Order: sequence, then C-alpha cells, then structure tokens
Amino acid sequence: MITGSELVRGERTDLNGPYLARQLLALGFEPARISIVGDRSDELEDALRHGIEADLCVVSGGLGPTHDDRTIELLARAAGVGLRLDEEIERQIEAISRGFAERTRRAYADFAPGVRKQATLPVGAFVVGIAGTAPGVLLPLPGDRVAVALPGPPSELQRLWPLALGHAALQPLLGRAQPPGRRVLRFFGVGESVVARAFDEAGGDGDGVEVTICARDFEIHVDLVVEPGAEARADAIEQALLAANAAHLFARDDRPIEEIVLALCRERGLTLVTAESCTGGLVGGRLTGVPGSSDVYLGGIVAYANTVKIAQLGVSEATLAAHGSVSANTAAAMAEGARTRLGADVAVAVTGVAGPGGGTPAKPVGLVHFKAVGPHGSLALEWTVETDRETVRRRAASSALHLLRRLLSQS
Amino acid sequence: MITGSELVRGERTDLNGPYLARQLLALGFEPARISIVGDRSDELEDALRHGIEADLCVVSGGLGPTHDDRTIELLARAAGVGLRLDEEIERQIEAISRGFAERTRRAYADFAPGVRKQATLPVGAFVVGIAGTAPGVLLPLPGDRVAVALPGPPSELQRLWPLALGHAALQPLLGRAQPPGRRVLRFFGVGESVVARAFDEAGGDGDGVEVTICARDFEIHVDLVVEPGAEARADAIEQALLAANAAHLFARDDRPIEEIVLALCRERGLTLVTAESCTGGLVGGRLTGVPGSSDVYLGGIVAYANTVKIAQLGVSEATLAAHGSVSANTAAAMAEGARTRLGADVAVAVTGVAGPGGGTPAKPVGLVHFKAVGPHGSLALEWTVETDRETVRRRAASSALHLLRRLLSQS
Repeated sequence: MITGSELVRGERTDLNGPYLARQLLALGFEPARISIVGDRSDELEDALRHGIEADLCVVSGGLGPTHDDRTIELLARAAGVGLRLDEEIERQIEAISRGFAERTRRAYADFAPGVRKQATLPVGAFVVGIAGTAPGVLLPLPGDRVAVALPGPPSELQRLWPLALGHAALQPLLGRAQPPGRRVLRFFGVGESVVARAFDEAGGDGDGVEVTICARDFEIHVDLVVEPGAEARADAIEQALLAANAAHLFARDDRPIEEIVLALCRERGLTLVTAESCTGGLVGGRLTGVPGSSDVYLGGIVAYANTVKIAQLGVSEATLAAHGSVSANTAAAMAEGARTRLGADVAVAVTGVAGPGGGTPAKPVGLVHFKAVGPHGSLALEWTVETDRETVRRRAASSALHLLRRLLSQS
Repeated sequence: MITGSELVRGERTDLNGPYLARQLLALGFEPARISIVGDRSDELEDALRHGIEADLCVVSGGLGPTHDDRTIELLARAAGVGLRLDEEIERQIEAISRGFAERTRRAYADFAPGVRKQATLPVGAFVVGIAGTAPGVLLPLPGDRVAVALPGPPSELQRLWPLALGHAALQPLLGRAQPPGRRVLRFFGVGESVVARAFDEAGGDGDGVEVTICARDFEIHVDLVVEPGAEARADAIEQALLAANAAHLFARDDRPIEEIVLALCRERGLTLVTAESCTGGLVGGRLTGVPGSSDVYLGGIVAYANTVKIAQLGVSEATLAAHGSVSANTAAAMAEGARTRLGADVAVAVTGVAGPGGGTPAKPVGLVHFKAVGPHGSLALEWTVETDRETVRRRAASSALHLLRRLLSQS
C-alpha cells in the first residue's frame, strides 16, 4: 500500500510498490495487490482495513509530523488497537529534530508537536529504525499476520526495509515463505508472439511454474518463478523456449545489455567508443551507467549537426551529399571515424530520423542506420519503426548495444 | 485499476495509472485510488467490485485472447450483467487476425477462439475502438457511473483513451466534472523544507486549493490544483511562495529544463555543445530528446577517458597532472575546448566522481565540477553529494542544464 497524493494523481510514478513487490517475490511471498491512495482518510482507512487481511501488508508514506500524516493513526484503528507514546523513541526523534532546528535556526518548539506525533505508535508495535525523523513500524496482527509502515521517500524506505526484514517479529512469516527458484531468459530479435507460442505449446503456466513474458524495446524478457519441487517442469519449459529460439538468446541473467557488451570487450581486451547522432548520447549514457566501464569505454562523439560529423568524425562532405546523414554510408564513416580518432578497438555508430519532424518519403521518421566495427570485422543494421521520438531513440540505443554484442560474439 | 502479474510483482513499473490519473485530474476528477492486481481472478474480481463503486473506474489489461485474460468476464460479473457476442466487432477483429495469421504463416483456426472471446462483451457496453485485436470497452452503470476497460500496453491505452473520452456515454459524467485550474511553480537551488515552510505559513492546503510540493534532483516542483472560485486563495499562496524564493524560480510551466535552455539559446541566436565525463552522454541525451533541438544543439564530446579529454577537448596534460580530471580547471578546459573545437557559442562541461569506486579523500565519491561558457561570460559550480552512482549522474546532468540556464539568463 502506497500513500501520497502526488502518486494517486499521477504527478509522480510510484517506485516503492515495484521495489517491495520484487523484494517479497524473491522471499517467497506472492504480491497480490499494490494500492496507491491519496491523503484522504476514508480511502486510506478503507485500504488499510482491506490490506491487513493479507499475511503481510506493507504501507509506505504518511509517517511525517504534519496533520496530513495519518498512516499510524489509521493503521491502529484498522487493527483495532490503541495508540501509545513511546518515550524512548520520542527522545531519539527529539535529538534529531533539535539538531535540525539548530542548523536551520528555528525554534525547537516548532518541531515538538510533530516529534510527539511521530513517537506515538500502535500498541504492540515495534520500531525497526528511524529515517529522517520517521520511525519504521512493524505491527504483529492476529493469525500470524504482520503490518509494516515505512516512510514514503524511496531511499528512506529502502534503508529501513532490510531492518524490518531482519526484525524478530517478521521471522515466523519469513520462515513460512519458501523462496522460489528464479530463472531468466533474455531473447533479442524475435517477436514476442513467437516466444509466447513456444510457451503455450510447452503447456503454459501451472504445475508450480509461473512465467512472465515481456517485450521491451526488441528484447523479450522471460522470467520463470519456480516453486520448490517444480524444477523438472521449469526445465521442460526452458527447453521448449530454447528449442525454438536458441539463436536469439543473449542472456540467462538480468544484466542489462550494456553490461554484457562491456564484459565481452573486457574479456577480449578491447576498448570501445561511440558515435551518436539521433540518440544524442543515450548509448554513452547507458554504457557509463555501469560501474567499472572506464576500463573499456573511452568516450564518444555526439555528432548531432553535420558540421560535427565532418569535423570530429571525418565523415566526408561527398558522403553526406551523395547519401545523406541518415544512411549506411554515413553510419560506416561515423563508426570508422570514432574508432580512429578516439583510438579504440571497437566502435558503434547510430544515425536516424527520430521525428516527429525531419522525415521524407525516402528517409521516413523512424528510419535508423547502425554500424559496429571491430578488429575482426563489422556489422551493419537498418530498421524503420514508425513511432514517437522517445521510442525511436530508446530502441535505437538498445539496438546499437545489441549490434555490438553480436559483433563481439562473432569473434 | 491496473492488471498484470509483471506489474504486481514489480518486474515492470506501471505507467497507465499515473497517465490516467493525470488525464482525469485535468478534467476535474479526483483520482482516489490506483490498484494494481495480478492475474488471479479473486483479486481482480474483488478489486473490480470495489472499483465500480466510484463515479468512474478505468481498468487496464487483461483484454487479450488467452484464458488468462479475465477482465471483461469479471467486469460483467461485478456489474451484475451478462455477456453477449457482438458479431460486428467479431468481424472487425477477425479481419485483423486473418491479416496477422497470413503474415506469420499460421492457420486462422489458431486465432478463432481468441477472436470470439475478444468480441464477447458485457451487455450494455459500447466499443470505443480497437487496438491490436482488443476492443476498448465502456460500460455505463446505474447511478451515472461508468466503467472503462482498456488494453494494458501503454501505447494502446493512450491511443484508445481519447476515444473513450469522446464517447457519448461518458459525456454526462464529464459534464459534471469541473476542470480545475492548474498552476505550476518550479524552483531550483532552494531546499524543499524552505518551500514547504513558506507554504505552511501561507496557511497550507484547503479552501479549494490543493498543493503538492515535490523535490526532484534539486528542482522543487510546486503544483496547485485550483477549484473554480478559489483563484484568490491560489494567488495568495503563489505570492507567499514567491516572496520567499523568487530568486530561485525558474519556470511557471512544466517544460523540462532542457527545453528551457534550448529556448533561451534560440531566443539569443546561440548554438550549444556539451563536454561530458561522468555523465557519459546524459546531458546530450536530454537536450536531443526535445524536438527541434537541432537548430541549437550541435553535439558534444563524451570524454570518459583522459586521453579523450586531451585529444578531443584540448585539455592539457599539465592541467590533468596538476589538478586532476575532476577539478574546476579541467571542467573549464573541457568547456572551452568543446566550444572552440565544435564551433559553438555556448558550452557546458561536467566532470565528477560518480562512484561507487574512484573516490579519494581529496576527491570523494559524489564530487562534481561544472563549467558553463558563453559569449558574455561564464559560470563555475561544484558540489559533493554522497549518494549512489545513478543519482550522482542524474543530478549532475540536471545541474549542468540549470547552470546553462543561469548563464543564459544573466545576459
């Protein structure tokens, strides 16, 4: 359960729900529902009453010092228990608040009512830790159920969550949950319906194996959640999916493609650079997002204007005049230029029409050319996907990285 | 209401809930709850029964042709109406499926049961359109309530949503909703608590004005939702927020900072380039995400390795030896080098220690140096925020763009 008016109004996308769901799934819980409510008491109380019927209910948000923060009060009401002031917790929160008051040169008296409020807990609850001035609260409920209340800001929630997990009061529930096995297959260059069909023909979900098939920018992500005892069924499903599509499998773990590309370069002792036009730096941004990328990735040229393609990458004016900036010839010249001028072993270039403007009948919106060059060969690619600017760019960045993977895997 | 096992299990973050919430808020609806459930019938049916108690319930997902797709069946059950086969819709979906069957060289007989299922609708429902092979469905309910069922894939939902909005059966409800006024204030370089305090001192929420204050990477986003008649109250709140923080206001609309920077350049007839180290292309990626950026943004150098800083940006070995790659001197040399070599009027450079490795006592993780240079002056900035790699990089990209804004606003 997630509370926050900016969340239910769509101004911000909830991150806590997916984070907690992934955490719990790995522990053997089955996330049944993620509810996002605003600050209205009636909605929050109703959702809490419903939520605490589950074995485990985790609520985020509404633990602050202001009158809008109702989570603890309404959790106690839904659980049918009273509230009590915890003087030790009050002392701890007061110490934090006094420090804050000094640094911001405000009177502590301004903070005192909020401190008292945040130290008021449901009878029977435990405090697992404090983030900011809000305590993370764990409340055991009848029938071995548990409710956990954590702060709304994702970094604070993620800091307190492991403390809740480690708390004695949650161990019985954790002990009953059986962490499932998890298997991951990642395909590229095959349609989602083809993978879905192979899965259907293998018998589909059931018998202790739940399978999710998700398409993401030309990658097909297959995730198997395997109950203890269902390993043979999971093996059979994996075989079926691979029998049809082995050539398209690129990973059996969930490392992102940029991490796989860097590893392939590192294993071969190769350095890598990028030459980007329409993607504007997205490929370099993804590669540098991986810690330790600096031993492989040297940098790149974002050649958005043709003058920069000419001056920085050595693309000839003749090539641009004859074939245009979005062409196989220009992509090849960009890739070679980057490799040579930046002194690397491998390079990938991307040039395309991201849209919405700039398309012509010969070079429509969504047309993208790619070239990957290395010490043992090169690969060229071209596709056209008529879609919005953001999707063209995002898929182009993904395709560039996969082209590098294919090039490196060849040698 | 959002259905999808990969969503409730946190493997994918829901986009439909926030999208619909924003759409509805703008029309004068108050989003009360976003519920995310998996494919389990009992959870879905329970959530539907609860959801259709609202004036408007929008469900996404579960409209496909397979046995797992239960939304229509359970919506009808929750609404207490029967199901009927719509032969005209069946014909339309069949035509689409036959085309797909031919292109993928499969027998249409494989698709026929799914087609029949997707053409089976609740009694009293209207079809607003078809995306893929799934019809978007609008079901009027007693008491002027309405339920709308749309496909799960966000692009399909966003294509059918305007058709639902335009449908005659939704007009009574839309007519009763009063679109609120919306005001937006964007601050930079001031703490969230300072803005929150000014808001509290102005009286806080209420009297027809709901205010959300959100901190995002050093930007403070203040959104006012103003009920008709409450404009004077909204004015008072705005005045109060501006009285305290006018110097930090950078926008009164929700254009992203990269769009604002490009507009400032365009107004002044200036071209722009980037020189990035730790951000690896993120700044260029954000600028090129804005359609029409090509008349201002020429490109950039991603100088991840020092060799590239030297060769492509002209940073001297002496500077690197004396001050290090993460220093005000190097940032300045990178910015000037980019501006000169790429032939632009304005340039921004970023160099920092993103972490988690690479920090030293003198140059810790989270230290970032910035330099913005233009025809009428320059600005330098430095900060240290000890946080994770992704946050350091994301905030560095945002700070670089804001530094450009400040530089351009000076002239």
